[in-house]
Amino acid sequence: MAALTKENVIKALRHVDDPDIKKDLVTLNMIQDIEIEGNKLSFTVMLTTPACPLKEVIKNDCLKAIEEHVGADIEVSVNMSSHVTSTRDNAPLLPQVKNIIAIASGKGGVGKSTVTANLAVALARSGAKVGLIDADIYGPSIPTMFNCEHEQPSIRKEGERNLIIPIEQYGVKLISIGFLTPAENAVVWRGPMASSALKQFIGDTDWGELDYLLIDLPPGTGDIHLTLVQTVPVTGVVLVTTPQKVALADAQKGLTMFMQPQINVPILGIVENMAYFTPEELPDNKYYIFGKDGGKNLAEKHKVPYLGQIPLVQSIREAGDIGYPAVMQDSVTANAFKSLSQQVAQQVAIRNAQLAETKRVELKV
Amino acid sequence: MAALTKENVIKALRHVDDPDIKKDLVTLNMIQDIEIEGNKLSFTVMLTTPACPLKEVIKNDCLKAIEEHVGADIEVSVNMSSHVTSTRDNAPLLPQVKNIIAIASGKGGVGKSTVTANLAVALARSGAKVGLIDADIYGPSIPTMFNCEHEQPSIRKEGERNLIIPIEQYGVKLISIGFLTPAENAVVWRGPMASSALKQFIGDTDWGELDYLLIDLPPGTGDIHLTLVQTVPVTGVVLVTTPQKVALADAQKGLTMFMQPQINVPILGIVENMAYFTPEELPDNKYYIFGKDGGKNLAEKHKVPYLGQIPLVQSIREAGDIGYPAVMQDSVTANAFKSLSQQVAQQVAIRNAQLAETKRVELKV
Repeated sequence: MAALTKENVIKALRHVDDPDIKKDLVTLNMIQDIEIEGNKLSFTVMLTTPACPLKEVIKNDCLKAIEEHVGADIEVSVNMSSHVTSTRDNAPLLPQVKNIIAIASGKGGVGKSTVTANLAVALARSGAKVGLIDADIYGPSIPTMFNCEHEQPSIRKEGERNLIIPIEQYGVKLISIGFLTPAENAVVWRGPMASSALKQFIGDTDWGELDYLLIDLPPGTGDIHLTLVQTVPVTGVVLVTTPQKVALADAQKGLTMFMQPQINVPILGIVENMAYFTPEELPDNKYYIFGKDGGKNLAEKHKVPYLGQIPLVQSIREAGDIGYPAVMQDSVTANAFKSLSQQVAQQVAIRNAQLAETKRVELKV
Repeated sequence: MAALTKENVIKALRHVDDPDIKKDLVTLNMIQDIEIEGNKLSFTVMLTTPACPLKEVIKNDCLKAIEEHVGADIEVSVNMSSHVTSTRDNAPLLPQVKNIIAIASGKGGVGKSTVTANLAVALARSGAKVGLIDADIYGPSIPTMFNCEHEQPSIRKEGERNLIIPIEQYGVKLISIGFLTPAENAVVWRGPMASSALKQFIGDTDWGELDYLLIDLPPGTGDIHLTLVQTVPVTGVVLVTTPQKVALADAQKGLTMFMQPQINVPILGIVENMAYFTPEELPDNKYYIFGKDGGKNLAEKHKVPYLGQIPLVQSIREAGDIGYPAVMQDSVTANAFKSLSQQVAQQVAIRNAQLAETKRVELKV
């Protein structure tokens, strides 16, 4: 056993690795505020995200390390806090936004907006500062899913600039074309108009400080996608697919787009949505309406993380239609979405520890 | 009773109305080749589509009219034939194509391509000449659904022009970006590139004579939609939606787009897809996963025909994934699609009888 000193505590905690980043907490600068008073020790573990799924594991590892390498009779209090990491500190656009995460799918109707809405609410509930851009100009679903279809954002003057103030709902800052045009009207625009709306949502919106800015992309691999990667470096992409062949084919196109060398945005992982249908009165029956494990196989093929599956449950769709995301309810699905949000936050932290900032795409198209 | 003469037969058949167009068959020029030999009478009823759902009704009405107004002891043989009507006889582009039908949805993933594929095969099986343009440049599903992903169209020289020869499968002529690019590659194009692909599919493809050219549109109301209505007058639009609120909102945007005065394309009707899920071993259980009657209510609200509903059945998705459309199988779903194709053909005939040719859209966007 060693004496209870700051040095020995640090030495002991060098034995605790962050299980994702696979370096020890001291090297990672995650140990702060060590205080010793007689037999009492307290310190803070600064996690890379409040949505860290391994919070308890890390805390227990710290307690064990102190017990083993300093002493068993110490009264230890571990304060778990977080500071979301970023590679965007010197970004010219949105420098206060730590991570920009695009949610893409290739194919429409696979539940991209449902996943994005639930991801945003889950991250906000974990304590993170979250924004959401609904980049589906032709079919904005986010206002409905957040039950704020009739809200209209106000404008704030900042010098010569007009900044849109996002709508805040369930702790998430939101912007969507749905707030700016009547719901029944079609937005019949060619690509450049749609692209300039996205640019405004990124550059002319008063986002303030955010840990995660999620971007709900439209289907396809066209104007909006190109404009996004040319406007702002994207931290990573979450790809949503259903297990059916025609959806996987389009998801693969989405993957190929972001992975191609000129674009080169890291893939945070693949979510398999509508993985199976379960009738509420027959919870043991799983119907693989759209096929089985398609998302998992795609992730394996491209060696990207598989973030898990979300079942097709009537209550998820109903939750979206009434504007109260499923993750806010007390159910199996709420847990599935909560777990998904932890997986995504974890992948962002791993990406930030391993890779440099994404480069803004310069290609002229 | 009257004597068996050509005049009296014509007089008798003036009592038979086309139930849709609500004019008599003689006025509509639908009676041809009247032949009388002793006590034997034969004539041809020229329907407006081979997929006419009222074939038997009209035939029986003719037999009854002859019996009632000419005589009961006549040996009558009615030959039911068809000649698909058109308002496009003098069109500068595709004059040999009688009807151009766009299949739209607003939202992606509602089964638009599945409906289009089954509609095309059902119309072809009824005896019509059918072509299909897969206008979803970023997510072409048609090659998979027709099991011809690895086909490559050949080119035919016509004077100075190169004409693409469409791939023929299950009696349908097909063109898709999927035949021209490797399946795994993303088509990362801005709008003008995508639009020019569509223009080629319309103008530089060797379609020959067609009764129906179906156009499977991508989701949204953007470049491809504008280019279509600016390139060629569209006979009518079939709108596909699922019953859920966020899909209906987008379907409504699609409707609004085509109905707006500058565009003004007739709406042939609304199809409700994935209306309910039925497990194969529990055929009496209907699960309204995506809600109930949303498509029907939308049709009523906008006073457009409701073309019926297609259930969410695992075998439909499987049929699409293996490239053998469900309508080619012997099942309840096959009948649902067959009936849908008859509804659509009927609506086209009604539209052609009542409205002048659609105008090509001139607006500059």
